[in-house]
Amino acid sequence: MSVVRVTGFSISLDGFATGDVQTLDEPFGHAGQRLHEWMFPPEAGGETRAQSGIDGALAAVSWDGSVGAEIMGRRKFWPYPGPWTDDSWRGWWGENPPFHTPVFVMTHYAHEPIEMEGGTTFHFTDGTPEEVLAMAREAAGALDVRIGGGPTIVREFLRAGLIDDLHLVIAPIVLGRGESLWQGLEGVESEFDIHTANSARPGVVHQFWQRKQH
Amino acid sequence: MSVVRVTGFSISLDGFATGDVQTLDEPFGHAGQRLHEWMFPPEAGGETRAQSGIDGALAAVSWDGSVGAEIMGRRKFWPYPGPWTDDSWRGWWGENPPFHTPVFVMTHYAHEPIEMEGGTTFHFTDGTPEEVLAMAREAAGALDVRIGGGPTIVREFLRAGLIDDLHLVIAPIVLGRGESLWQGLEGVESEFDIHTANSARPGVVHQFWQRKQH
Repeated sequence: MSVVRVTGFSISLDGFATGDVQTLDEPFGHAGQRLHEWMFPPEAGGETRAQSGIDGALAAVSWDGSVGAEIMGRRKFWPYPGPWTDDSWRGWWGENPPFHTPVFVMTHYAHEPIEMEGGTTFHFTDGTPEEVLAMAREAAGALDVRIGGGPTIVREFLRAGLIDDLHLVIAPIVLGRGESLWQGLEGVESEFDIHTANSARPGVVHQFWQRKQH
Repeated sequence: MSVVRVTGFSISLDGFATGDVQTLDEPFGHAGQRLHEWMFPPEAGGETRAQSGIDGALAAVSWDGSVGAEIMGRRKFWPYPGPWTDDSWRGWWGENPPFHTPVFVMTHYAHEPIEMEGGTTFHFTDGTPEEVLAMAREAAGALDVRIGGGPTIVREFLRAGLIDDLHLVIAPIVLGRGESLWQGLEGVESEFDIHTANSARPGVVHQFWQRKQH
């Protein structure tokens, strides 16, 4: 059965998934790469080693072909608020983005679809989480739908009870400011079974939330 | 060498170490016992089993005789703000509290010392973290000083750079409100080596912070 899932969503100990302030140069603000170090192969003796073990597996599973459509927030596609100001912007991911599926960008500002190489098309859509999820499910067919972030979008879908599987990564840093995942989600854990595993990176924790079966 | 440490300090995923609102009936507010379940032996087949493994060891190490003095916040001793209103209050812990050492309660309101059975004496003291720590160190002699909480006190001592060892327990719950450990501590992790271990309770994480040696 296809599920709605979040993969490799990294937060700080104080619950921030992006720092302050997001820009084109710093999409995660003052957090920089610190939330996502677990994703990248460690360097050893000047050589970059292939990522192995739990971190490698969890980074790879995001891109294993099981996802048929993605939903992301406007600020994940383009970091600034308000009306579109740059019609030439086609996302952070180059001409052949890693999604290879339809991607639904949630925004209040209309924008023509953008067709990229490799099967990725960005659709821009206004609507409730339920409405956008219905579109994404139809596009995904028998495959899963990924909620790609950022924190505002994951929070909204959690609050609406629409996420089946959530893979969180808790980095051992205190960001102090940014966009919080947890705001307004008191008690959200009660609908999930939760277990954890340690990353190979000291202090980093993988946490797996799976919606309880009723 | 004696160290200043925090043992078994439990927080929620969103960083709260007590819920909202603290009272005599609910010292952790709406959090109830949920932050501290890891400390208590699980029940199996109607019988309470002895706590074993990592959780049992970490619960026991708090009381192994290595601590010679304790510092706690006023709200850990008595949950209400403002001047003392009940002269008969002698703490939550009965006539023979588990500390068996001098305990320095940080408060702006003067109060006579309270001598309990078993070696515990509560001293009430106003002063900076540095000043109170100097008193506690002198009382502890060669033994460690524990910063017993609550969150306000742990935060103040972390901010002042006075904690050597911090054992955090992250419970897989979103409290939403209460007293946050992390407020104002951006970047505090940079002075520590951090590693983690999983509790036997699903989703609960032990995290160990050890001050870096320079």
